[in-house]
Parts: sequence; structure tokens; C-alpha cells
Amino acid sequence: MTLKNPVIGLLGGGQLGRMLCEAANPLGIDVAILDEDMSPAKQAHNTNRHVTGSFKDPERIRELAGHADVLSVEIEHVDTEVLEEIEKNGVQVKQADGSSRIHTPPVHPSWRTLRLIQDKFLQKEHFRNSDRRIPIADQVAIEPGEAALDSLRDAAARFGFPFMVKARKGSYDGRGNFKVAGEDDFLPAIAALRGLSLYAEKWASFVKELAVMVIRTEDDAGNLKACVAYPAVETIHEDSICTKVFMPPRDVQESVSEAARKLATDVISTLWGRGVFAVEMFLLEDGSLMVNEVAPRPHNSGHYTIEAVPQMSQYKAQIHAVLDLPVPKTLAPRVSSAIMLNILGGATPDAHLALAELARSTFDDDMDVYLHLYNKASKPGRKIGHITVTSNLTIQALEAKVKPFIDLVDNLRRDRLAASAETLRPTQEPAAKSTSAPQPPLSQPSSSAPLVLVTMGSDSDLPVLSAGLAILREFGVPYALDITSAHRTPKRMMQVAAEAAERGIRVIIAAAGGAAHLPGMLSSETPLPVIGVPVKATHLDGVDSLLSIVQMPKGVPTATVGINNSTNAALLAVRILGAFVPEYQEKMRRYQQDMEEQVLAKGDRLREVGDVEYLASKGK
Amino acid sequence: MTLKNPVIGLLGGGQLGRMLCEAANPLGIDVAILDEDMSPAKQAHNTNRHVTGSFKDPERIRELAGHADVLSVEIEHVDTEVLEEIEKNGVQVKQADGSSRIHTPPVHPSWRTLRLIQDKFLQKEHFRNSDRRIPIADQVAIEPGEAALDSLRDAAARFGFPFMVKARKGSYDGRGNFKVAGEDDFLPAIAALRGLSLYAEKWASFVKELAVMVIRTEDDAGNLKACVAYPAVETIHEDSICTKVFMPPRDVQESVSEAARKLATDVISTLWGRGVFAVEMFLLEDGSLMVNEVAPRPHNSGHYTIEAVPQMSQYKAQIHAVLDLPVPKTLAPRVSSAIMLNILGGATPDAHLALAELARSTFDDDMDVYLHLYNKASKPGRKIGHITVTSNLTIQALEAKVKPFIDLVDNLRRDRLAASAETLRPTQEPAAKSTSAPQPPLSQPSSSAPLVLVTMGSDSDLPVLSAGLAILREFGVPYALDITSAHRTPKRMMQVAAEAAERGIRVIIAAAGGAAHLPGMLSSETPLPVIGVPVKATHLDGVDSLLSIVQMPKGVPTATVGINNSTNAALLAVRILGAFVPEYQEKMRRYQQDMEEQVLAKGDRLREVGDVEYLASKGK
Repeated sequence: MTLKNPVIGLLGGGQLGRMLCEAANPLGIDVAILDEDMSPAKQAHNTNRHVTGSFKDPERIRELAGHADVLSVEIEHVDTEVLEEIEKNGVQVKQADGSSRIHTPPVHPSWRTLRLIQDKFLQKEHFRNSDRRIPIADQVAIEPGEAALDSLRDAAARFGFPFMVKARKGSYDGRGNFKVAGEDDFLPAIAALRGLSLYAEKWASFVKELAVMVIRTEDDAGNLKACVAYPAVETIHEDSICTKVFMPPRDVQESVSEAARKLATDVISTLWGRGVFAVEMFLLEDGSLMVNEVAPRPHNSGHYTIEAVPQMSQYKAQIHAVLDLPVPKTLAPRVSSAIMLNILGGATPDAHLALAELARSTFDDDMDVYLHLYNKASKPGRKIGHITVTSNLTIQALEAKVKPFIDLVDNLRRDRLAASAETLRPTQEPAAKSTSAPQPPLSQPSSSAPLVLVTMGSDSDLPVLSAGLAILREFGVPYALDITSAHRTPKRMMQVAAEAAERGIRVIIAAAGGAAHLPGMLSSETPLPVIGVPVKATHLDGVDSLLSIVQMPKGVPTATVGINNSTNAALLAVRILGAFVPEYQEKMRRYQQDMEEQVLAKGDRLREVGDVEYLASKGK
Repeated sequence: MTLKNPVIGLLGGGQLGRMLCEAANPLGIDVAILDEDMSPAKQAHNTNRHVTGSFKDPERIRELAGHADVLSVEIEHVDTEVLEEIEKNGVQVKQADGSSRIHTPPVHPSWRTLRLIQDKFLQKEHFRNSDRRIPIADQVAIEPGEAALDSLRDAAARFGFPFMVKARKGSYDGRGNFKVAGEDDFLPAIAALRGLSLYAEKWASFVKELAVMVIRTEDDAGNLKACVAYPAVETIHEDSICTKVFMPPRDVQESVSEAARKLATDVISTLWGRGVFAVEMFLLEDGSLMVNEVAPRPHNSGHYTIEAVPQMSQYKAQIHAVLDLPVPKTLAPRVSSAIMLNILGGATPDAHLALAELARSTFDDDMDVYLHLYNKASKPGRKIGHITVTSNLTIQALEAKVKPFIDLVDNLRRDRLAASAETLRPTQEPAAKSTSAPQPPLSQPSSSAPLVLVTMGSDSDLPVLSAGLAILREFGVPYALDITSAHRTPKRMMQVAAEAAERGIRVIIAAAGGAAHLPGMLSSETPLPVIGVPVKATHLDGVDSLLSIVQMPKGVPTATVGINNSTNAALLAVRILGAFVPEYQEKMRRYQQDMEEQVLAKGDRLREVGDVEYLASKGK
């Protein structure tokens, strides 16, 4: 593109757009942003070409197109129909003399790429079926509606347990995923992901997650011009959010990193359009690589390039690529190692400030610390900034030096999780006994007051509980959520237990792993029935958790269910409620009949077709 | 400062403010700018705290103060009275409830520092008289009005010839300077710098100009906390504008660079307030250093720090310093060498684009190229961007690699100088003979039509001509300016000569140096009298120029004056005009009488007081 003052029209003005603007400013490139006024990106770049509104609004997208020499996106969840229409038919632009002309800005990356990537199932089918034969996890589509159960059975027959059920569209950062450990998880999975288009994926047992950013350019006819990989990095996800990035990956041979880069360029070469792309992949136990998914835009795993590959950061590369300016043939880092730490909003709006202060005050001959704040309001768990540390030390030595930062990040997370319980609790619950403000009478629960309290020792137990929560929703049981660690928040746990009955709670479900003291300790402080869910933690397959819960001394019972079996814990809670509330008992009766009919039908079919055909039809 | 979201109020929104904003954005720091809307800095940072108006308007400065936690400046030529008043008395800020409160933001660097630095003479007196005994050039104030001549004689007696006469205030980039080569330059110097407060400075014969940026912090009581120097750099000035910066300085021993850093911190430790400061100095022939002047803000010579000292660029340092955030104890570069090249507006608005394209398309394992455009409208000679190249090569090897960039920068300058003649010419002059647009009748000059054409071979001759131009203005002679190089723009020179008489020009003054062909060649193409001013160029003390002009063959005369003596060229032109225009003749007569009276008065005084007292009174 040889335009003198090119304008990039960008759908979305979050932190990715902000960092794109930070790269565009010194280059003298104008970026017109479609988003709300004073969104993070608009704060970092001022132009009278910005458009105010939602990047999901087709009319505003057309308005933006009229200002732009090229359209690009900050997020892939956009209306590709509108983008296709704009690229094919253009938009009307009013001219100074009152007449109109048709303006047809290209869209990069291509709307074809965006549309494909929006459907994770189709995306991976595309990679697997390409002539590059990209390794992906075995997957199978799940039929909608009543056929879903059959699809799940097919998946189980094909993949064995456990396997993953995932939403095909609209999910990211691990949302919309459900781990199916056995047949008992079929209904919960369908319930939890109800209304979404789904697919099942074979369980991948990986040792690390790696990611590689790639620059892709093509000529105007769509022929690939360049496909250049950045260094491979190791990504750490916690609570399904990327929290840390290590360059180079720790304890990974360089040959593996090189293979990851080769795989990434193979993947991106199968797509369409110009721009930077993130390729997320798994490093499996056997040392092989498997592609997880692709993001068609700058990516959290590429933030480190701002300082580690400063001659062509992912943001500068996005600008160069979409404007068809030259891009380099190689992307060597200018430092030996880099660590990126996300700053996620903490328990209080100011909780992250200590981390920012540490970044601002750390000066070290052996490492450089770079703070990036996005000027977003802090909310617990929200990405509001990041810190990149670069060095010419080894990644191991740098990790040791960066420990005070990592500790602060981890503390921030711990405090946030403890506090997030507060926000999860319904408003009827008193914040604390010491509160002097008048409280509503708690002994008379309203129709929306919780009857079941579901609590856990750590938010890492929440995925295990989700099947049970789906059951509670299915039965229309109002419940409250909490995190009450017996060991990290003992006083609070005791208080919650002591107050539960007063609040109108009738049953407590408590999940915990390892030395799982939570259910028993709650039981010692409440007169209510406590159901314990042993969670399979790091070691011993959950047996430690099971014994810690079930082996309570005489006088202090816990109703213990199977390891990870929150479904049964919820059904038990419904039964307890049903003992006094006729509606719940009636619902439970219908639920049991349905199960019976399903199993009877299976028996009918097995008798009818015999074992060979039965198994064959499940395996297809 | 422990404010959560601190706001820096900045007077001025040019490129320095823009790069400050580029550093502030990732830090999540808000910068409220007082300048016109969409000034370069406002484009790179959007906030509803910006103030629209001039940074010289006291009312707007007070408005800005109301928005700011600290006030700072992008340029030192500001109203320090207002800043002093704000720091002492504060400003009224309306509150949500309609009441007012007094808000008293500190000013950094201190208004004391700004006020001192505004007067170059006092600034250097301060440095010399400080306990650090900073080496500066010998200097003496020049009395205003009629006593000025005596002051100049005093300076000559003290310093010998040549010496410099400089404006004490409001000048930068070499403007407001006059080189006095002998007694004949006294009146021209006074005429050229008329109305300005002046000082005389001993001639410094330097081999290089060096510069060092320094971070200065202090506690709230004004006690120095830190004074930290960046690496020393070599600065190249052309046409009195910084064009190139080399880190480290070429062919300078490291001990000298270290001495420069020590000197710079000594200088800045004598000032007041927080911020970054540039110390410009001369490296003299004997290897010693002498301070030239200080800029109390980020500086062109520090642009290279953005990439070469990325952990704490001068802009990030300015933010940290004025907000009293921590600053590092050392400022080591992260590369071995860096070269900064200014992008100055070229002959046409697009002329610099080739340089930008080269920067955008150069990818090299041995060097990294960073483009910075300020999004200012391109005007010839205007600073509209810069390029920094960093490397781990030696500075010599990097300079060799960067040659294509330096060549383009130099070509841009050459073309700009050739073309700048166009913009200097009055509008009455036709742009070129080929122009098809109708032209006003040129043979009937209006009262504002030029009678004298003053032209030169290079804009480097302009300082020599300025004394003569002052004479022309003093006599009320309308004149036109041009640059017509005999060797670089020969066709244009011939055309200008051929058309001069038709335009109504009566006399041509032409200045040239070296093989100074311009006056003679003009003479060969015009019937008008041509006065040649030999300019002392690089070699031979101007004798080459003199002979090239005066030794014309028979038949083609040039009226040659003394070397660099444009005063006499102008007086000669006035006499030629006076031969036909009575008013000019009458003015010339009065001018001659004044001179006579001055010299007679001197003779009177000398006879009266004797040589000893006469010389003594001059030397005081």
C-alpha cells in the first residue's frame, strides 16, 4: 500500500487496540476505532475518524469502513457477513460536493479466516484436512437436540473417558468447555452447555502449552508472500486465563521450539489475508505437538514482543501486514529471555497497585522491567495490564530473579479468589457480623433465597462442581456459591458454617481436595446436613480427599459422595429438600423415571440387535 | 507522589510532548496538554483534561493547573511569573457542590530553573559562580542602547577577534547569534540584534559538540535526591539545527565521555526541581570540555534513549521524575551504538517519504531501525520526525551501515535549501517562465516591490548577509531574497539573472564562498549592477572567495566588497539607489554624518582624558 497517510479501521478498542495504537503513533499511522468513547484504545490515539458505538453494529461498521483504507479487528467474534459485504460491494461515502462514491476497503485478515476461526470445530477440521496435515486432537461434532446423547455415546466409544465437550463458537479462555469423565457426565454436560453448538474432543494429556505468533502477508490476488514466525513461548493458564508467558519455554529443547515455529507457519499458511496470528498448541508427553487453536490477531502470548522483538513487535507487525508494508524475513529476539505476567484486577480496585509500584521501582543491570497499564477500570480477574521483563540471563535465572513479581501476581490471584466469593454470594447474605448497617430478616427466606450453599476450598474445585450446579439449576433449586478454605480462610469458614442455618440454608455441599478438611469442619459448626464432594487433586487419584471427608469421627457426620461426583451431591441435596418440599420430591420422581426409561430402552435395543451391532453403532 | 492516577499538566503539545505521551500511555499516566486541538501530542493521547489554547496564555495555564497534579513544560520559553504564582498561591478549582477550593500543584522543573535558563547569560554566570566551578566561555553583558558600542569594544579588548554576540533570551538553535570578526562588525551586530538584550562571548574553537541528558530528582524540601547521567553523545548541527546524534561520540576517548557525564551532573545539580535536562557542551582542541547551554526538558539529543536505553528513556524518566516516582541509579545503554537522524521537512510535502519508506523496509540482523513521525504538516526544515538506528556494532561500523540513510537525509537537505529560495521570494516574482497562469506586470514595481535582490549560493551564507539585510531594513529598502547556486542550480541562477531587471530590481547583491562563481555569473546574464560579497568558507580565510569574485574578466564587472562585509554591500546598494532616488541619498547623507559625529566625539574624549584613562574606561 503506497498511501501517504494510511488509516486502519479497527473493530474494537480494548487493550489489544490500545497497544496497536501505541505502535501506530510513532509510525505516524492513523487508527480509526469503532468502540465506545474513551475505550482503552481511544485514550491512546486521538483522531476525528473514530466511530462511536458497538463493533457488533453493522451500521457503525459501514461508517467505519468509509473512513478506512483497510479494515481490521481486535477480536475475532465479529459479524463476518457485514465484512464480506463491505469487501465485495463497498460502502457509500459522501463527498465534499454532496455526491457519493463507492469505497471498498480490503479486510485483513480476511473475513473468510475470521468466519472459519469462529467455529473451533470447523477451524480444526480445516487444519487437519489441509495439505499440511496439521496434527489436532481427534474430534467429532455433537448433534443438536435429542440426538446429543447419542453423539456423546459415540464420542465416548471413540475416544474413551475422559474427553472434552466444547462449544464450537463464541467461547474463549477455556469457557464453554466441559470435561466428561464418564457416562454420568453426559446429561450434566448437555445441561451445562445447553443451547450451544458443541463438539467432542479426545482428551489430550499435555505437558506444556506453547504458542507462536506468526506474521502472514499475501499479494492482492491472495497468493502467500510471507509467513514468518516469532520465537516459541510457553504459556501458563490459571482459572482458564493466560497469566504468564515464558520465552524461551522452560525445559523445552530448542528443536521442539523450532518444530513449534514450523508448525505455526504451516497452520497460518492455510489461512487467508494479512496480519499477525497466534497459534496455541500442546506439547504432548511423547514430545510431539498438537494444535489447539488459532487467534487471527495480536494475542496475549505475543505481548512480550514489544520489548523482546522491538524491531518488529506483534503490533508493529500487524500494522505493517494489514497495510502491506514490508515485513522482515526473520524475527530474532534481541534478548535471551523474557517473562510476561498479566496484571489481573484484584480483590479491591487498588489491589494491583503494589505490583505496578514494584514494576516502577525495580531497576536491575541484569533485567529490564516494563509496565503496561491499559487504563481499564479494575474488576476482579479482568486483564488490566501486564509486565514484561527482559534479560540476557537464561530463562531459569530470569525466573528466579522475577520471583518477587510472580509472588505478587500469585498473591493477587489468591486474594481475588477469596474475595470473589463475596461477589458470588447473593445480596441477602450479610457481609459480616460486624456490619452495623441494618440487615433484612434472614430467618424468613424469600422465594429467591438460597436453599443450598455450595462452597469449595479453592476455585480450582469449581469445574468439578459445575455438573452438580447444572443439576441444581435443572431442578430449580436456588443456591449460593462461596469459597471457604479450611486452611487459608479458617475464620471465615467457621463463620459461614455458624450462620448458614440462620440464613435459611437447608443443605451445604462442600467440595475439597487433598487434605480435604472443609466438609468435616463445616459439619462441626452447623446443624445442617453437609454433603462432601472429594475432588481429585494432584496426587493419589482423589483417595486422599475421599478419606479426609468420609472418615469423620463419631458425632459429626458428612454425607460423602464419589470422587468428583458433584452430580450425586446435587441429587442428594434435592432429595433432602424433597423430604420436606413436595415439588422437589415430585421432580426427583420424574427424574428417576426418565433414567429408568432410558436404561430400559437400551436393554431393549441390546436384546434386539445384539452386542456386535450395538457396539458398532456406538462407535460410528 | 503516591497518587493513584496522577495527571501531568504539560505546557506545549509538540513532538516532545507527543513522545512524552507515547511513554505515558503504557504507564497508564494521564497527560493534560495545553496547546491547540490536535497538536502532535494531543493526537497521541486523548483525555478530557486537555486544555485548548496557547501555552503562553496565563488564564489557560491556570485552567490547566486546576486539572494537574504537577505542572511541567515542553519548552522553556514560558511565563515563569504565572508558574511562580501558581506554585505559591495555587489556583481556584470549582467543586461538584459549587464551592471552590485552592489547588496548588508543584511545578517541575522549578520555575526558578526555567527563569534562569531563559537568560543564557545569567544561566552561565550561575554555572561559573556555583561551587562546582563549571567551565563556560568567558562572557560579558552588553549594555543596552547607546552604551552597546562601548560594551562591544570592551568585549573586543578582553576576548580579541572574533567573538560572538548573542541574544540573552528567546533564542535557540543558533538563532540570535552574530559573529563579530572585527570592529567593522560592531554596528551590523547591533543592527542585526536590535531590541534584544545581548551579551558577548569569547570565541570557542571546538572540535566537537557533545551532549548529555541528566535525570534530576529532589525531595519536597528541595534537597537533591538523584542526579543521573545518560551516555554522552555527539551532536551534529547543520543550518543551526541538530541533524544527527551519535552514541557513543565518534573518535572520542571513553574518559572524555565519562568526563562529559560528570560535568553534566555537576551542572544539573546546581539547578532546582525535578525532571530531565540536556547539557550541551563543546569538546575543545585541548581535550577539555566547556558547557554551552542547558535545556530543562527532554531534548533532541536524547531521542536515541527511547530505543538505546529502553528501560528508562528520557521521556519515561521525565514522567518518573516529575511525579517523584523512583529513578534508576545508573543508565546503561542496552546496545553498543545508536545513531539518531532528524527527519526535516523537505522541498515538497512528500519529499521525506522516501526516507520513511527506507526506514520501514530496512530489516537487518546487525541493526534495528526505528521510525518516529510526529504527524506534523511538512514544511521545509521543520522537524517532522526522526529515525533511530541501534546496533551492537561499533559506532564506526554502524555509521557505515547507516550511510544510505545519511545520504538521503543530506539529499533532502540539499533539495530543501535549493527550494527554500522559492518560499523566500516575494509573491510578485513569477515561479517560472513556463507558468501559464497570468502574472502581474513586473516592469511597474509597486511600492512594496523589491529594488534589491539579495541572493546567495547556500543558506550557510545567510548569517554573513544578515548584517547587510539589517542595513537595508534600516534604510527602508525593499528587497527580495533567493538562493541560486552557480553549481547546484545553474539553470535557475541564469534565469533569475536574466529576469531580474524585468522584475524591477535595480541592484543585485550576491554572496558566495569558495570557488565563488555566483556574482560573476549573475553579472554575465544581467545588465544590473552586481555587488559580490566574498564569504569566508572552510579554507584560506575567504581569500578564495574574494579572488573568485573580484578577478572577473574585462567586460563583466562585479562590485566586490570586503570578505564577509555584507554591511558595505548593502550601503553600496543604498548609494546606487540614492543616485536616482533622492530619499535614499538623503538617508545616506545622515548616516554618514552620524558616523562622523561618533568618531569626532571619540577624538574629543581621547584628547581630553588621555590614552590611559580612555583604555581603562573601555576595559571595565
